[in-house]
Amino acid sequence: MSKYFSIRYKNLHPYTPGEQPQDQQYIKLNTNESPFPPAPAVLDAAAEAAENLQLYSDPRSLELRRAIAKEHGLSALNVAVGNGSDELLNFAFIAFGNKKAAFTYPSVTYGFYSVCLNVNTVARRSIPLKEDFTIDPAEYLDLGTNIVLANPNAPTGLLLSVEQIEQIVAANPDHVVIVDEAYIAFGGETCIPLVKKYPNLLVLRTFSKSHSLAGARLGYAIGQKDLIADVNKVKNCINPYNINRMTAACGIAALEAEDYYQQNIQTIMDNRNFTALALRRRGFEVLPSAANFLLVKPDFCTGEALYEGLKDRGILVRHWKTSRIAGWCRITIGTIEQMTKLIGAIDQMMAEKTEG
Amino acid sequence: MSKYFSIRYKNLHPYTPGEQPQDQQYIKLNTNESPFPPAPAVLDAAAEAAENLQLYSDPRSLELRRAIAKEHGLSALNVAVGNGSDELLNFAFIAFGNKKAAFTYPSVTYGFYSVCLNVNTVARRSIPLKEDFTIDPAEYLDLGTNIVLANPNAPTGLLLSVEQIEQIVAANPDHVVIVDEAYIAFGGETCIPLVKKYPNLLVLRTFSKSHSLAGARLGYAIGQKDLIADVNKVKNCINPYNINRMTAACGIAALEAEDYYQQNIQTIMDNRNFTALALRRRGFEVLPSAANFLLVKPDFCTGEALYEGLKDRGILVRHWKTSRIAGWCRITIGTIEQMTKLIGAIDQMMAEKTEG
Repeated sequence: MSKYFSIRYKNLHPYTPGEQPQDQQYIKLNTNESPFPPAPAVLDAAAEAAENLQLYSDPRSLELRRAIAKEHGLSALNVAVGNGSDELLNFAFIAFGNKKAAFTYPSVTYGFYSVCLNVNTVARRSIPLKEDFTIDPAEYLDLGTNIVLANPNAPTGLLLSVEQIEQIVAANPDHVVIVDEAYIAFGGETCIPLVKKYPNLLVLRTFSKSHSLAGARLGYAIGQKDLIADVNKVKNCINPYNINRMTAACGIAALEAEDYYQQNIQTIMDNRNFTALALRRRGFEVLPSAANFLLVKPDFCTGEALYEGLKDRGILVRHWKTSRIAGWCRITIGTIEQMTKLIGAIDQMMAEKTEG
Repeated sequence: MSKYFSIRYKNLHPYTPGEQPQDQQYIKLNTNESPFPPAPAVLDAAAEAAENLQLYSDPRSLELRRAIAKEHGLSALNVAVGNGSDELLNFAFIAFGNKKAAFTYPSVTYGFYSVCLNVNTVARRSIPLKEDFTIDPAEYLDLGTNIVLANPNAPTGLLLSVEQIEQIVAANPDHVVIVDEAYIAFGGETCIPLVKKYPNLLVLRTFSKSHSLAGARLGYAIGQKDLIADVNKVKNCINPYNINRMTAACGIAALEAEDYYQQNIQTIMDNRNFTALALRRRGFEVLPSAANFLLVKPDFCTGEALYEGLKDRGILVRHWKTSRIAGWCRITIGTIEQMTKLIGAIDQMMAEKTEG
């Protein structure tokens, strides 16, 4: 740290992304990426967009926002776009939070929420998950703060129903409720239709997981037009041209290849069932996931030992040391070949344990 | 505005980008884009990077930072990267500013500085340009605040020498001096070599103008490693994976095609000389520019009339209504064909004025 760093930021704790080894030697099951490449039309769109990179992108990203709006039967005025949903979280925290206007989120959830609220000096509250890792909507009624919830939650994968989400949104009419649906495509039901009824609901989505675009950085927010205008007002103060030409083109092309992605999503859900069953048969506790990952607890070793043992065998999964979930690992669902290798590696570890 | 918008942001004034008509019917001389496309190798790099978009980009952007560092004989620890230099300004304002730690900038300069400082509730000071639009370094000595300067300044195009920059940096050892070199390639001398000597100097660069990548969004910051670590710490709290795979690949490829860009830069400087001479011959006041634009003042009409008359003739330039420079227009330097059409349109306007 330099001596110039602002005093108020000396207690910053940056977000720690999952490992991103650059040598590609691992089977990466640690950052919830899709194992499938983007649709061929997306590659063409990126290449074509690159031809005009000397020109700025449209600061309103209007064509992209219209394409997204069309998917949901809404207007471009209901859509804001960001460099991943992370950037939209940042805009929304700035727009709706401050030292007095707190955001409440569950503990445990996506670690970026607290990090990003902290850097923006927005007040934070957290509500522990129940013993079984579920969120009890009754604990989120009339809170007197804004709320941010991942649904399904990460890293548990546990889902709230649209009715449960509506209960929370309806019970906090004077505060914004952000529902982060990064993983909703993998078996959940979206709450986007509630946007028409509730002016305080902001739904976040991303192309990263279900649409194989983690490396392109594209997320979007859906809400009533006043709420979206607020988010875009902050955007125009921080990053006016936030979506580059290639990413915008990739997003539009991805929306036109929905069949391809739906097929991939179905495969991932099938592979999730296969993996959950195989792990349960091996004595693992496996949370019922509506996401493209499983939170699992081995009974033959600690969570950390599972992480280390798999890493030694060329497979990366995610483990958090200092948390209520230290006994668990989060495993991204990949191809059936990758899942079979994962199970094979676990069988090896269990056999060595027995022999030892 | 929704009723949820934070009170502290009710007085936000977002940055207004130059018009970005999506129909491509205009000759665009209003946002300082390069008239030349990216190098062919950049297109190949974008297409190749698109093949792996299902995977996150490297959150450290190490390969890109190494390539940039190499250009300047520095290490990756001296380089931070952003979605355009705008994003780096945002990170730096957060890292080094707050309600008490102000930033000082000239008035007039790039309008984004005040907008972005404001949204981050960082205190702001401004020092008017001299009567002739120059910056007097003597007014920036021992200010007791951080400083942000564009060099050459925008929209004047006027350049400070490295000696003048050093005078300012050396005289403010307890504060950060950001030197925004977005336009330095067009005839200025960079102050990057001063970084080795001064721990308080942060130099910003962009691929947008000189390297034909405005639509890819890529900028970088150069500084001593502690200063860069501060910027990256804020980055990791706000946008951990900020550079997408395609943009990173484009940046690396652009650095390898330096000859192509140097040739374009020389052409733009030649066209600038041609345009300045032609306008002076027509009675315009033309500031001596070290950038890829000219700030010009017609004597046959107002600045606004010049803007409107050129727009009617299919040519977009930039005009600011409510400012000390209302009598002036900023004209981006394009191809010689575009500049010839510009002069032709001005001749037409002058002839009509004489006839009228």
